[in-house]
Amino acid sequence: MTMHSLSALFEPTSVAVVGASSDSDRIGGRVLRFLLEAGYQGQIYPVNRSGAAEVQGLKAYASVSAIPGTLDQAIIVVPSGGVEAALQDSIAKGVKCVLVLTSGFAEIGPEGRAQQDRLVAMCRAAGVRMVGPNSLGLLNVDTRYFATFSTALNGLQPKPGPISLATQSGAFGSCTYAMASLRGLGFSKIVATGNEADVDVAECIDYLAGDANTRVICAALESCRDGERLRRALLKAAAAGKPVLIMKVGRTELGAAAASTHTGSLAGNDAVFDTVFAECGAYRPHSIEEMLDIAYLCAVTGRLPASADMGVMTSSGGIGVLMADHAGDLDLAMPPLPEAGVKATLELLPFAVAANPLDVTAQITAVPDGIGRSIDLMLTHGPYATVFAYLASAGLSPQRFESTIASLAALKAKHPGKDMVMVMASVTEVNERLEALGIPVFGDPSRAVVALAGAAHMVKRRQALYTLPAARAASAALGDVGTEAAAKKVLGEAGLPVLPERLCASAEESVAAAQGMGFPVVAKIASPDIPHKTEIGGVILNLQDAEAVRAAHATLLQRARGAMPTARLEGVLIAPMLKGGVETILGVHMDPTFGPMVMFGAGGTAVELYRDVAFASAPLDATRARALVGRVKSSALLRGWRGAAPADEAALVDALCRLSEFALAHAGELESIDINTLVVREKGAFCLDAVIAKKSA
Amino acid sequence: MTMHSLSALFEPTSVAVVGASSDSDRIGGRVLRFLLEAGYQGQIYPVNRSGAAEVQGLKAYASVSAIPGTLDQAIIVVPSGGVEAALQDSIAKGVKCVLVLTSGFAEIGPEGRAQQDRLVAMCRAAGVRMVGPNSLGLLNVDTRYFATFSTALNGLQPKPGPISLATQSGAFGSCTYAMASLRGLGFSKIVATGNEADVDVAECIDYLAGDANTRVICAALESCRDGERLRRALLKAAAAGKPVLIMKVGRTELGAAAASTHTGSLAGNDAVFDTVFAECGAYRPHSIEEMLDIAYLCAVTGRLPASADMGVMTSSGGIGVLMADHAGDLDLAMPPLPEAGVKATLELLPFAVAANPLDVTAQITAVPDGIGRSIDLMLTHGPYATVFAYLASAGLSPQRFESTIASLAALKAKHPGKDMVMVMASVTEVNERLEALGIPVFGDPSRAVVALAGAAHMVKRRQALYTLPAARAASAALGDVGTEAAAKKVLGEAGLPVLPERLCASAEESVAAAQGMGFPVVAKIASPDIPHKTEIGGVILNLQDAEAVRAAHATLLQRARGAMPTARLEGVLIAPMLKGGVETILGVHMDPTFGPMVMFGAGGTAVELYRDVAFASAPLDATRARALVGRVKSSALLRGWRGAAPADEAALVDALCRLSEFALAHAGELESIDINTLVVREKGAFCLDAVIAKKSA
Repeated sequence: MTMHSLSALFEPTSVAVVGASSDSDRIGGRVLRFLLEAGYQGQIYPVNRSGAAEVQGLKAYASVSAIPGTLDQAIIVVPSGGVEAALQDSIAKGVKCVLVLTSGFAEIGPEGRAQQDRLVAMCRAAGVRMVGPNSLGLLNVDTRYFATFSTALNGLQPKPGPISLATQSGAFGSCTYAMASLRGLGFSKIVATGNEADVDVAECIDYLAGDANTRVICAALESCRDGERLRRALLKAAAAGKPVLIMKVGRTELGAAAASTHTGSLAGNDAVFDTVFAECGAYRPHSIEEMLDIAYLCAVTGRLPASADMGVMTSSGGIGVLMADHAGDLDLAMPPLPEAGVKATLELLPFAVAANPLDVTAQITAVPDGIGRSIDLMLTHGPYATVFAYLASAGLSPQRFESTIASLAALKAKHPGKDMVMVMASVTEVNERLEALGIPVFGDPSRAVVALAGAAHMVKRRQALYTLPAARAASAALGDVGTEAAAKKVLGEAGLPVLPERLCASAEESVAAAQGMGFPVVAKIASPDIPHKTEIGGVILNLQDAEAVRAAHATLLQRARGAMPTARLEGVLIAPMLKGGVETILGVHMDPTFGPMVMFGAGGTAVELYRDVAFASAPLDATRARALVGRVKSSALLRGWRGAAPADEAALVDALCRLSEFALAHAGELESIDINTLVVREKGAFCLDAVIAKKSA
Repeated sequence: MTMHSLSALFEPTSVAVVGASSDSDRIGGRVLRFLLEAGYQGQIYPVNRSGAAEVQGLKAYASVSAIPGTLDQAIIVVPSGGVEAALQDSIAKGVKCVLVLTSGFAEIGPEGRAQQDRLVAMCRAAGVRMVGPNSLGLLNVDTRYFATFSTALNGLQPKPGPISLATQSGAFGSCTYAMASLRGLGFSKIVATGNEADVDVAECIDYLAGDANTRVICAALESCRDGERLRRALLKAAAAGKPVLIMKVGRTELGAAAASTHTGSLAGNDAVFDTVFAECGAYRPHSIEEMLDIAYLCAVTGRLPASADMGVMTSSGGIGVLMADHAGDLDLAMPPLPEAGVKATLELLPFAVAANPLDVTAQITAVPDGIGRSIDLMLTHGPYATVFAYLASAGLSPQRFESTIASLAALKAKHPGKDMVMVMASVTEVNERLEALGIPVFGDPSRAVVALAGAAHMVKRRQALYTLPAARAASAALGDVGTEAAAKKVLGEAGLPVLPERLCASAEESVAAAQGMGFPVVAKIASPDIPHKTEIGGVILNLQDAEAVRAAHATLLQRARGAMPTARLEGVLIAPMLKGGVETILGVHMDPTFGPMVMFGAGGTAVELYRDVAFASAPLDATRARALVGRVKSSALLRGWRGAAPADEAALVDALCRLSEFALAHAGELESIDINTLVVREKGAFCLDAVIAKKSA
């Protein structure tokens, strides 16, 4: 097995603390104190320029080069002015990686950015990896390697567990760590990547995907520099069967505004992150608590559920309905209890509501092992990957609950492929017993269902993961695509369905073109300077005869001259007028990080009013293109709306695939493509207009 | 001050436990044990037919009538067969109310329902109030009156506090009680109304609205029998300035399906409950935890915030953005920090991001009383009713946090009209100190904002509350409104804008009518048996000349005969064809509990695809009608969409008001009204079609 490039970061056997202080409350002192208190078994070398012989009881060194033997890692906590020298010294010593906790680099402005770039250049030249600068550090709870100055460790000791966390922002990481620790969740590894001058969150996810002690990966991004690296890391975690819960704040307009104030970076297209996370099988929680709830569920069961199908056994009808409400909100399925299950349930509990939810009523208390037997019925007869049991306050009395724990242990052995989740008020002692059996416990019925929904989303997404595109031969340059006619021509050559149309220089030419195509026709102004024709009245529809075409030709030229006197006018485009069909919008947005993103919408007004559009990364195959269409509500219009004949969805899917291939082939040149409108008819789909914007040189 | 009719229920001075048992684990024994353990100071009289002299150390009685002196309340816990006799005995003794905990009545079927009806009749005749049967009981924590057999009391003792809870389902109440108690929330009163044969949740809300010890009302409904009582109670609580958090499960399709299995009742129109709660100033949480978060916030601050404007002071940029994201999701406003605030902030903290969120950065730790001074700047300069402060893990170290508590106390005195909310990891000791100052503490930044959003919704809703309609003089009966023409006629008489149209028996009559109106016209089949004309092709639009009208007349009759051979055909309606304008849909649904509900939607397809409709209770005045229109997204189409001239919203608002008055005037006769379509043009609105359905006799 080859070592991961970050192994020496998370699992060093020797470490120097450069800037170690005797004052265990100062930053450089805290790092050393936490390492000592944790009981880290590797070699620790305090480095302090003062020439002190000892720091916090350890032999100290005046420089890294003075340390005897080999050294894996240097933690640098000196003031920012001294970081370059400390790095040089560490590189000279032969470290594999450095962890730079010092701040005052790119985050404070151009000067700091230049200084940071010098650190990166030094590391690159030496083949040394760097986390930071401006990192809050990392924790490897398994090896007790606590390399951080976070004050959260003053109050809360990390518990070992199967969850790992990679976060750009140290403050976000501290908040998550504190919330998790206060509820008793344990961690394997935590790392804060800070300014990400070298190592970023994506690479940490990649490491954690292969880390044997990590079963659940939590992550938090503020930005992403390398889209392909992030995609690869998420896909690797998905392949390893590990849930990935990834947060990125700045989702809403208010949030994005706050983000741009705080980080100075533009918000970018948040929908792109949503799309990439989903395509690569990760789930994006909206709150830290939601992230921890899902992580807890998966950490305790040790896996993702087999499906999104859930059953509920409950001692309260109302709580069962509440849980069904959330299942309905969150696209979980609650298949009915099959007939055999109903029969068996009514034999055991004649007054039960034998359904899903299964309301066992107060009767359950009179039946020996009623809880275990009811859950067994759900697991045996129902097609439920997960069965929730709402047990009121049963978990508050450990003694009385003892026998139920024994039955649950037996059920776990009997139904190894299925998961049980208890929902009840309970004490820590009971929770820990159940968790050891692989059974999570939630106090709030709603949060239990929300947690499963997050896990189930990952399950569904991983059934159709994105595939990174194979390398492509370079395409010929696009040439001039500044007019509608030119744009349609290249799209037509790329296999998109474009209507025959003619660029006509005179009214007579327009009439002849129309007569050749057959009436009715559409006339549009043709100018490289007027991309948005409708805004100046540059499109006239439904011309029924030669006279109308002649008049339209003149009108269009006149309107264009009136509205944009300096525009270069090439003439008038004449095209057949299509009636009927469903209007759709296809687009491509070139994301600087993630490459070409395809957009789809249907139904005109709805796109704008309801933002009823969906995105997908190029390239699309037919399956993913169909899924993209399916994610848009107004696609119902394509599927036999109100008794109309279904539209030719295959033609639409083909157009989407070809558009995505075209975008990928010309990714270097393109900025965006807008096909507004593509009409999808009973037979065929036709691109009525197209605008291609190239990157400014 | 007059006594509330439920005073003797919540505050009895003497009580008989009918069915009291010596076995303190059995139901009848538990009730008595809890009363004794609680230290209730009123008289307690155990009643037990066995003739035992003592039960659990108290003198026992063989019947209620044997009790000496007066008696306020009887708690009945005998088996269901003995309830009638126990009630008779209690009534004879002169009790003011009874609390029937025994189950086995309406909830088990028709026989139980009949037995329950007899209990009600006895109570009514005697002027005695009854809670239950099938009630889990009640708690008055203030007077230590614990009248329940809930096992939740075995593990969790109630803490006194300003929150009260009225719930129909006892199990739902137990779950809420357990969740609240485990997080340290205290209660004033809790009542479970069970089968609601007499007292319902609405009446309990009415009581709690006037209860001095209750500052926050939580409630949970499964159904509602008396819409006006519920509305009055909610409005009374709103007038008293008390937040009302009311849950009703069965929101989603899955939930409603589960609800109908469990309670046997049809789900009803969930949107109606949403509407009524909002109109009466209450908030409907989607989970118990959300309800408790909002209750906690308001209980600690002692009020609703003055507005929905919030400020955030944070030591982490990322957490600030996260909170802004939720504010964006939930319609909270985050006004910018005014210039003077920015200036003062930068004087104190030169490296801060002086905005809202205010990111104080790590610099804060170097400034004496940095936290207090930063919050003060937000409170002093910003227009924020609530300021959140995210303080990482500061609350984990009570000693270090001591000085901050002192500054917060000073700020509370300095800014009495504004609220502060701390968000941090903290220990109970710190939380309790802050709560005593009126400052809530949340561990999860997201939940803190969600809680404020719930409170802010109530604030906004209470600025425009529903007013119960004054009694109306009886209206003349509607007569036959089974055809479009008849329906339009009565709506026209009610002041709705109806186009002139003519019912024509022959093709010649149709042509003459069209010529009289001017072309183009619309022709529609007229039949009392064909309410949904478009489905059989019974509407032909845009007829341009006499020939077209003649042909259409024949075609319509032919289509109607073909599709519905037995339909009575009255002829063809000819009406002017309107072009342009925005299509809207107006409707009235007669809710059996809440009366006429007006529905509004716009934009045709959107109504169905996106369920983009809103509801409001009749009657509507212009303000509420405008608000109804404003709640629909596609109303943007009315307001100058894409450069079009704005539509005549005043005409639409007038139509909505008149429709609501009409519905209220004929509430007894109506089942529903559908006006599909009302076209709103630049000048005027016109009702193109209408269907009125009357209740079946």
